[in-house]
Amino acid sequence: MKISAEEAARCLRAADDVLILMHRNPDGDAIGSGLALCHVLRSLGKRARVLCADPFPRSFKFLEETYTQDSFVPKTIVAVDIADPQLLGSLSQYAAQVDLCIDHHISNTLYAEKTYVVPEASSTAEVLMEIFDLLGVSVDQTVATCLYTGMATDTGCFKYGNTSPHTHRCAARLMEVGIPYAEINYHFFDCKSKARLLIERAALDSMEFHFNDRCALLVISKQMLAQTGADAADYDGLSGMARQVEGVEVGITIREQENGEYKVSLRTAFSLDASAICKSLGGGGHKQAAGCTLKGSLEQVKQTLLCAVETALTGGKS
Amino acid sequence: MKISAEEAARCLRAADDVLILMHRNPDGDAIGSGLALCHVLRSLGKRARVLCADPFPRSFKFLEETYTQDSFVPKTIVAVDIADPQLLGSLSQYAAQVDLCIDHHISNTLYAEKTYVVPEASSTAEVLMEIFDLLGVSVDQTVATCLYTGMATDTGCFKYGNTSPHTHRCAARLMEVGIPYAEINYHFFDCKSKARLLIERAALDSMEFHFNDRCALLVISKQMLAQTGADAADYDGLSGMARQVEGVEVGITIREQENGEYKVSLRTAFSLDASAICKSLGGGGHKQAAGCTLKGSLEQVKQTLLCAVETALTGGKS
Repeated sequence: MKISAEEAARCLRAADDVLILMHRNPDGDAIGSGLALCHVLRSLGKRARVLCADPFPRSFKFLEETYTQDSFVPKTIVAVDIADPQLLGSLSQYAAQVDLCIDHHISNTLYAEKTYVVPEASSTAEVLMEIFDLLGVSVDQTVATCLYTGMATDTGCFKYGNTSPHTHRCAARLMEVGIPYAEINYHFFDCKSKARLLIERAALDSMEFHFNDRCALLVISKQMLAQTGADAADYDGLSGMARQVEGVEVGITIREQENGEYKVSLRTAFSLDASAICKSLGGGGHKQAAGCTLKGSLEQVKQTLLCAVETALTGGKS
Repeated sequence: MKISAEEAARCLRAADDVLILMHRNPDGDAIGSGLALCHVLRSLGKRARVLCADPFPRSFKFLEETYTQDSFVPKTIVAVDIADPQLLGSLSQYAAQVDLCIDHHISNTLYAEKTYVVPEASSTAEVLMEIFDLLGVSVDQTVATCLYTGMATDTGCFKYGNTSPHTHRCAARLMEVGIPYAEINYHFFDCKSKARLLIERAALDSMEFHFNDRCALLVISKQMLAQTGADAADYDGLSGMARQVEGVEVGITIREQENGEYKVSLRTAFSLDASAICKSLGGGGHKQAAGCTLKGSLEQVKQTLLCAVETALTGGKS
């Protein structure tokens, strides 16, 4: 059932011993929102703790440091930034038990007993600010840092189309609390690990252009990962690189898996449907970002992909 | 003489036939602010035009398209975003004739008859918004696009420490006018020309690490520029790449010049003084970003630089 912000605030005020769930592969908004809510509930004298199927990426250690574990049998279960119970990962036992979900994804499946979802919000962090206002809590530096991190990481630092005037005004308020926003932004948007730089270099070296530069393709092999020492946190975001090139309508990233299969990520310009291309290859996704998994040699995989892309670029005409 | 925002607004209201000067090598704030002021003065029924020693980089063509030239003998000369008359470049004949300067650089030399400078402002665009409010003009989409571009480019899209809560609130107001902010940000912060990508790849391939990864060095040779077809707009910003690597305290970029000399750019972490290192090599600059020009073979240039960096890293102890 969808509820209003006021009802969500009332739920939280009435709740105690709150378990806060985050989605698997947690990102800045999941972690920032989950920890912010946990801190705020504790400041209201309640017991609260967060739970996630996967460990936090190391770039979020600075947020994790503000958090201490708390042990209790939960009476209330709150999901933040989780659009679908499938995103609980190994915590699926909680899927049918979520009392309250706070989210910003239009795709929210309304699996929780009560759901407050604001699709116009940039991030769940932005949604939480409204609820915290209704709760009458004054946001401290720890909470402001968590919320700013959620908002900044989900908007590419106020860069993407999901940023609204309201997002900017929320950021202004958080900055006024006194947070190290320049350091946070350097950390997430300007600083790269050496391994990330090396895997980026290797990926760039593999880049090929096709169809009059309308398609760019890059490969991340097991060997590259081994040679550079890059892990998941390092190659996260690499799949955007190919599409960044001016004039490129389809960016393809092919990542070799441990089992020898190839995981393919496709990013497209507005004119092309990535999800349709990937569906034709047994995958799926969104209109501008989709994926599939292919078997065979790297050359075969490339040929399969380029063939499907060519069909899409020529509008199905051969 | 320093003046208040109110006086600056009064000056502009009284002015006519206004020539607006921008600094050489104009950036987003120079162009955005200059064009915004020009549009606003015209909306007040005045004649106005902009002038710059250098052509606008091609990435600003979309702003230039909103502008038409106007021919008249100027009665008032206004400089925007110009801290020092030296930055007029080949327009130095105007140095002693500037009636009003609007700027945000703390280093402004107060060369104009009247100067309104706000060092806390992120950008001259932010300063202009205050003045436009005092003038009572309502900012239209064209002006809002110019101002947003100035603000976003000077703050790295609200990423850097010069961004204030007020900057965010200004951005919110500009977005409410209805501007293609996501497209602007994609254009400036996510999109790369193929030549830029290729020169980045070549530069990354040249990257060396020294002193336990505390120093990273990259080279841009004449050959690389020729092979990739990259021009100044493409390699702009490359000098930040070396310093972006986690743990790197000194990032060195060596760019081979047409005459065979090497132009060196140094970026340092807060702990090190780039300007001191470059001064010891006959150059200069700011504490975290400085430069010098060196002669000799590439190997000699590298050795000279690494020697100076080593001295700085070991605190002068050998």
